[in-house]
Amino acid sequence: MLRQIEKARERLSEYFSPTPTVRSDILSQQHGGPVRLKLETQQPTGSFKVRPSMNSMLTRLEQARSKGVVTSSSGNFAQGAAYAARRLGVDLQVVMMKSASGFKRQRTEELGATVVPCENTFKDRWDTTYRIAGESGRLLIHPYDSEETIAGDGTIGLELLEQVEGDFCVVVPISGGGVISGIATAIKESRPGCRVVGAQPSANGSMARSLLEGKPVAVTPGPTLADALMIAQPGKRTFEIVRRLVDDVVAVDESEIRGAVKLLAEQQKLVVEGGGAVGAAALLNGKVKTAGLPVVCVLSGGNIQPSKLAEILAAS
Amino acid sequence: MLRQIEKARERLSEYFSPTPTVRSDILSQQHGGPVRLKLETQQPTGSFKVRPSMNSMLTRLEQARSKGVVTSSSGNFAQGAAYAARRLGVDLQVVMMKSASGFKRQRTEELGATVVPCENTFKDRWDTTYRIAGESGRLLIHPYDSEETIAGDGTIGLELLEQVEGDFCVVVPISGGGVISGIATAIKESRPGCRVVGAQPSANGSMARSLLEGKPVAVTPGPTLADALMIAQPGKRTFEIVRRLVDDVVAVDESEIRGAVKLLAEQQKLVVEGGGAVGAAALLNGKVKTAGLPVVCVLSGGNIQPSKLAEILAAS
Repeated sequence: MLRQIEKARERLSEYFSPTPTVRSDILSQQHGGPVRLKLETQQPTGSFKVRPSMNSMLTRLEQARSKGVVTSSSGNFAQGAAYAARRLGVDLQVVMMKSASGFKRQRTEELGATVVPCENTFKDRWDTTYRIAGESGRLLIHPYDSEETIAGDGTIGLELLEQVEGDFCVVVPISGGGVISGIATAIKESRPGCRVVGAQPSANGSMARSLLEGKPVAVTPGPTLADALMIAQPGKRTFEIVRRLVDDVVAVDESEIRGAVKLLAEQQKLVVEGGGAVGAAALLNGKVKTAGLPVVCVLSGGNIQPSKLAEILAAS
Repeated sequence: MLRQIEKARERLSEYFSPTPTVRSDILSQQHGGPVRLKLETQQPTGSFKVRPSMNSMLTRLEQARSKGVVTSSSGNFAQGAAYAARRLGVDLQVVMMKSASGFKRQRTEELGATVVPCENTFKDRWDTTYRIAGESGRLLIHPYDSEETIAGDGTIGLELLEQVEGDFCVVVPISGGGVISGIATAIKESRPGCRVVGAQPSANGSMARSLLEGKPVAVTPGPTLADALMIAQPGKRTFEIVRRLVDDVVAVDESEIRGAVKLLAEQQKLVVEGGGAVGAAALLNGKVKTAGLPVVCVLSGGNIQPSKLAEILAAS
């Protein structure tokens, strides 16, 4: 898997520069030790999802170009994939529940993808996606549970190894588990002293719950500001990697997520969405066992609805 | 002067890492050519002002430590200097008009500086500052018009030379003219093909007006969202450098500044204050003659009042 991440990095280097890491004065102060932030919010489309989607298309570029691509997402992966498809000259269909916000649908369409509506269940979303792939020969790319996706996600970890000296504790948002799987795979082999900690909203503790039960289990996700982390169940591949390589998975509640979004905007001058801020929220609330290591929080995305951010900023 | 900037960089390297530059997809698209952003918003205290204030104190550290430091500012320089003083173990007094916002005063005091109130005129502010320096022997550090300040500001330019290959056009906010003087000095000698363009709010066109008249002249600044760029008159040193090295100075109106702040927050995921966004505003409104060069906008600060940002985000 590590070799695949290295290959993904080679592939992606033609399209993206490494995202910066910055030292956060305010988080270091509040945490009581050095904290750096990995700014995936600065990627095109405002989240890390351009990495896995672009890597998945580049891996099978001939099929992607001749037959097109299909995927399933209502959020950041849809936009990332639409961006990648446009840059690669690939036709993309994105299966999205009818209940997905008009805002998200519109942004995906603006990037040139075709949105295929489906019923409001994860089952129908996947059934529709696999049906389209089977009927059309389109390349199906998975938002979190394929090797190509995890390899693309893992390029964040390779960048961190270059940007941060020595052992560190990285805190990573968890939804399906793709990005933390990729990062853990990338860094644990060359720096086994690093710690990898995942953070989830309490409203959707699917990975923590699955780890307890020893297998991927489904939960019914509740509403959360971290809407990018709404998933019924971790992936099979990602669950196995998380079980093997991730040191801890912690949960943060809504007021903690909200507080982190507010602090990051007001004091760190960064717009981070709820799902991108769960790691910082966990750290700020003393939930991350860092073993005394310097900390890196991966700010995975910034796609918060402007009116929602306005509301958070206006509240005292 | 270039040698002083190089020395400033050596001095500051112990305290600050270079700020990142990132490629902006949305600005590149809207401008129609590659645009990068220099993220001074990621400095401690949220603006580039830690560079000139820290350099000024380090240049005369013995005096600063034994006698203390005095300066005059109601905004970003006050906070930058307070941060530098705290890190260097220096006692700092900041002369601020009584009319300065409680918010700014509070943030400066939280960083450990003592605020000395004065009457609501630039004249009384400077009279008070020079009187304190004369009576107490405190080191007086100037917010924009001293060699140490300009040298500290210029370190941004040296970083850009390393971060950007080949010739580029850099767009820089102008208030007293310190940061554009430093940047122009740093880059014009080694890359004379680079362009340096300044941007000011129309509400305060003091530099443009002074260039027209061939000497620093005073204007009466009107209210502007770019409150960090409120100054009656350019510095003497900075005016001479700008006249010699800066290619163009352009003005942006309030709706353009507001639009740039909104776009940077919503699409680039960066919180930038009005004064930090004037360069992007000028570019977005076709006011920057780039000579076909790739563009770098210096986002000089992010200290916008949260309620103001909320209002801008909530407006359509």
